[in-house]
Amino acid sequence: MSQNRRYTLTISCPDRAGIIAAVSGFIAQHGGYIVEASYHTDQDEQRFFMRQEIRADSLPFDGAELSRRFIPLAEQFAMEWRLSDSACRKQVVILVSKQDHCLDDLLHRWRSGELAVDIPCVISNHDDLRQFVEWHGIPYHRVDMQDKAVAFAAISRLFEQHCADTMVLARYMQILPPDLCRRFPGRIINIHHSFLPSFVGAKPYHQAYRRGVKLIGATCHYVTEELDAGPIIEQDTVRIDHGDTVDDLVRYGRDIEKTVLSRGLRYHVEDRVLICGNKTIVFR
Amino acid sequence: MSQNRRYTLTISCPDRAGIIAAVSGFIAQHGGYIVEASYHTDQDEQRFFMRQEIRADSLPFDGAELSRRFIPLAEQFAMEWRLSDSACRKQVVILVSKQDHCLDDLLHRWRSGELAVDIPCVISNHDDLRQFVEWHGIPYHRVDMQDKAVAFAAISRLFEQHCADTMVLARYMQILPPDLCRRFPGRIINIHHSFLPSFVGAKPYHQAYRRGVKLIGATCHYVTEELDAGPIIEQDTVRIDHGDTVDDLVRYGRDIEKTVLSRGLRYHVEDRVLICGNKTIVFR
Amino acid sequence: MSQNRRYTLTISCPDRAGIIAAVSGFIAQHGGYIVEASYHTDQDEQRFFMRQEIRADSLPFDGAELSRRFIPLAEQFAMEWRLSDSACRKQVVILVSKQDHCLDDLLHRWRSGELAVDIPCVISNHDDLRQFVEWHGIPYHRVDMQDKAVAFAAISRLFEQHCADTMVLARYMQILPPDLCRRFPGRIINIHHSFLPSFVGAKPYHQAYRRGVKLIGATCHYVTEELDAGPIIEQDTVRIDHGDTVDDLVRYGRDIEKTVLSRGLRYHVEDRVLICGNKTIVFR
Amino acid sequence: MSQNRRYTLTISCPDRAGIIAAVSGFIAQHGGYIVEASYHTDQDEQRFFMRQEIRADSLPFDGAELSRRFIPLAEQFAMEWRLSDSACRKQVVILVSKQDHCLDDLLHRWRSGELAVDIPCVISNHDDLRQFVEWHGIPYHRVDMQDKAVAFAAISRLFEQHCADTMVLARYMQILPPDLCRRFPGRIINIHHSFLPSFVGAKPYHQAYRRGVKLIGATCHYVTEELDAGPIIEQDTVRIDHGDTVDDLVRYGRDIEKTVLSRGLRYHVEDRVLICGNKTIVFR
Repeated sequence: MSQNRRYTLTISCPDRAGIIAAVSGFIAQHGGYIVEASYHTDQDEQRFFMRQEIRADSLPFDGAELSRRFIPLAEQFAMEWRLSDSACRKQVVILVSKQDHCLDDLLHRWRSGELAVDIPCVISNHDDLRQFVEWHGIPYHRVDMQDKAVAFAAISRLFEQHCADTMVLARYMQILPPDLCRRFPGRIINIHHSFLPSFVGAKPYHQAYRRGVKLIGATCHYVTEELDAGPIIEQDTVRIDHGDTVDDLVRYGRDIEKTVLSRGLRYHVEDRVLICGNKTIVFR
Repeated sequence: MSQNRRYTLTISCPDRAGIIAAVSGFIAQHGGYIVEASYHTDQDEQRFFMRQEIRADSLPFDGAELSRRFIPLAEQFAMEWRLSDSACRKQVVILVSKQDHCLDDLLHRWRSGELAVDIPCVISNHDDLRQFVEWHGIPYHRVDMQDKAVAFAAISRLFEQHCADTMVLARYMQILPPDLCRRFPGRIINIHHSFLPSFVGAKPYHQAYRRGVKLIGATCHYVTEELDAGPIIEQDTVRIDHGDTVDDLVRYGRDIEKTVLSRGLRYHVEDRVLICGNKTIVFR
Repeated sequence: MSQNRRYTLTISCPDRAGIIAAVSGFIAQHGGYIVEASYHTDQDEQRFFMRQEIRADSLPFDGAELSRRFIPLAEQFAMEWRLSDSACRKQVVILVSKQDHCLDDLLHRWRSGELAVDIPCVISNHDDLRQFVEWHGIPYHRVDMQDKAVAFAAISRLFEQHCADTMVLARYMQILPPDLCRRFPGRIINIHHSFLPSFVGAKPYHQAYRRGVKLIGATCHYVTEELDAGPIIEQDTVRIDHGDTVDDLVRYGRDIEKTVLSRGLRYHVEDRVLICGNKTIVFR
Repeated sequence: MSQNRRYTLTISCPDRAGIIAAVSGFIAQHGGYIVEASYHTDQDEQRFFMRQEIRADSLPFDGAELSRRFIPLAEQFAMEWRLSDSACRKQVVILVSKQDHCLDDLLHRWRSGELAVDIPCVISNHDDLRQFVEWHGIPYHRVDMQDKAVAFAAISRLFEQHCADTMVLARYMQILPPDLCRRFPGRIINIHHSFLPSFVGAKPYHQAYRRGVKLIGATCHYVTEELDAGPIIEQDTVRIDHGDTVDDLVRYGRDIEKTVLSRGLRYHVEDRVLICGNKTIVFR
């Protein structure tokens, strides 16, 4: 078994004393070697969050058995928990429109092995990016937006047929219907081209230009029913000045969008993001 | 005459070809040596902005004469313009409440000579910071807020008695009345403890904490009648994470507020800021 | 007992499985409530590092008893460890020369309660900052540098008479003799005005200016015998451009020096910094 | 003629009063509309630098005529100068080895029209990136490194056959011979994966890791005979911490290398970079 194979255990439960001791005791009892351990208590919700990365080859059994044996402890502390295995790559479906900077960035990271996921398909309402995607050997599905209900049903079907874990809106430019948002909570990731909560909705760079801000930003967040209001995973900003036109803002913005989306997606697929109400805990 | 003495000429006028040539020709004709020159055209307003720093000792006459001779050119191009002399320090009145981090920062910069202004007085609605201000030899005026109309009349009077150029709200915590804002356009500077336009109004760090943003910021802006909506001079942000409490945000925020206010004020007193509608041009 | 009182346990020991379980089990067994927990394994040294913050009021006994009971576990794992009590403030002696920006920054943070330490005295080779320090009610000792051996012996004596934990060189401008560095390892903190390892030694801003770098920085590090080569605690950089003179670099530099020193010192006094060879682990 | 066509006039000459007036007077006399104007005086060298962007359609003649008419003025002030025409795209040859992140980034910017240059060919000592480059319709030349003298002669030949303006070493991993560096001064751009002058030469991320720095960086600079010591065009840094391995540094580094190289190259091809000794003026 590869030395690099890891089980990642993420936990959230009501806060009380002794949780770390119980979980690390459980792991130690089976000889588990913890590679990385992170904790957080949300004081408002009195809720405890935890992420443990364990070397798979340090355990005398596999992940399924580890999960089975963990159940009594999980029940004792009323935990919501998940065990993921680095050997099972996450399935990430990417949705795009015509702009390709985020797509190019994600595909390069995937191609170079930096982004350790499978991309079962790319979905778009245009054909512009087909050639580039297919050059990578990734299936490309065009789903037209004439009838939005039909279109989003087709997208859901594609997502489920591919047993996908995560949907990434890489500058997709379409607003997802509420039922689709509700169906995959914490599994749809969007990149919004502003420093939220400033400049929600359409044309944020134009809004930023008109307001005369001195920095612009981008926000990677989980999609919820309310537009651009879901839990924020990652954000960043970049300095602009009075000499920059809207086109310059768009150009600077592309770079920050790419960076923020790729970081946010990386945290997500490595199970570093836990959701707490409308906020995230990101165990970097 | 000191080699370091400068005249700073700032101009705004309708855009057309030949303005730079006309102004730099005028300066050259009198032997003026330009130390720093900056230009900007606002495409939306079709308006031209310009700042020239001229070595005083390169001219055969003083600033008053330079201004007199400049008038025909200014009229020809319908310029709004101003000539300031580095030998005449700006008079800056500072308003504070109980929090002293911005005040401490400004007074240190003043004490060390970095901030080349005079501070004729500090005004506050509390006595907490009196001792510290008076240690610097700066008069401290307490103006109580029981009757706001009376209080703001007193503040206006103090400002005018001291022939002050600029009023700085260094975490003053009081909302200025509309007539006061209108009376000193482009002369009252506020530091708001959020990245505007996010989190206008009270308790922005609490708002930021609740929204779960991953960066917080501060904004230095001119005060207008609409709360926290005036032209932005300077902004910056700093990274936070899920482990940070509201108290941590306040602590990080203090550092960013100090930096942003001191930079913004510096730009202002060096005549680097020109206002265009609700935006600023900052010739750094 | 105050709810905010904390015991902070920092540990370093040879890496092996089960350390987290053993330590968190020990704490849980006495009902200890862990507020913050951080871990790190240095793969090169195969060494494990740990920091636990425990609510004092969650334990049935005091810190001395906690330490006594911890000894067997510490011996079993060959731990180097330390328990500190937030109720016992660290004693921090500050050394300065003539420049006061770092001193002003630290004293303001101390005055406002942000920096929770005692400052038993300030030591300087000049009298320039005496008045400002004494206004704070802090004793000021002038130690002349005519005879350096005598001077540093006096400084050591002052440091020890005040039972000080930490010596901060806040732009002190004197090179400490090797024996003084060796005597207080991990206890003397310097702020160097460059992004180390660039521009070691004198006049780093002049060096940076001549090299034409596009960012300048500052470095907070522990002092060791080799000049500017000790373990780095914190660094940061700020953008400059071709228009900036050496004086501008010095001015930008002051701001970054203040920020970097205050962050580094904060990490240090909160026992967030562990030394591993010539590197630091900083549990932020 | 396109409204967007621009002539860019860059000038360097001994400093004296009246240069701006003379040049802007010359442009105004022909009705030229200045879109962007930047100036700088290097005090050490007493040399003046200037960049003017002029709308081509505002002039009654073409660039060749503009140049011809400018000669007397240029001679009068002993100017080194150049006029470039946005309609004549710069020819940029890219050299790569096996790592493709900078190449991918540049080709995406080229493909999307953001980087307005022609790429006549890509040269590499390996075949790994051939397919990706050729997919873009760009010729790919493999030049083996067995005999370096032969190889670099071939590279020079390719460069000259394509009448190329600029050579970009996009993580090329080969040290150019001195005669090649001397032959194309200010025309060969390298991206070095450290914040120079720290960590010159091989494996800078390993060097950074060993030194325990808290930020890493990248530097875009002109190549000169002395390794990693040429004039710096652009730099940036990113924060790391004790938990990051060398592999993490390499990963963070890729992002900062891409950003810094693309910015630096953009400044260069837009004639925003002027060289002054071993430093650059960058008129952003």
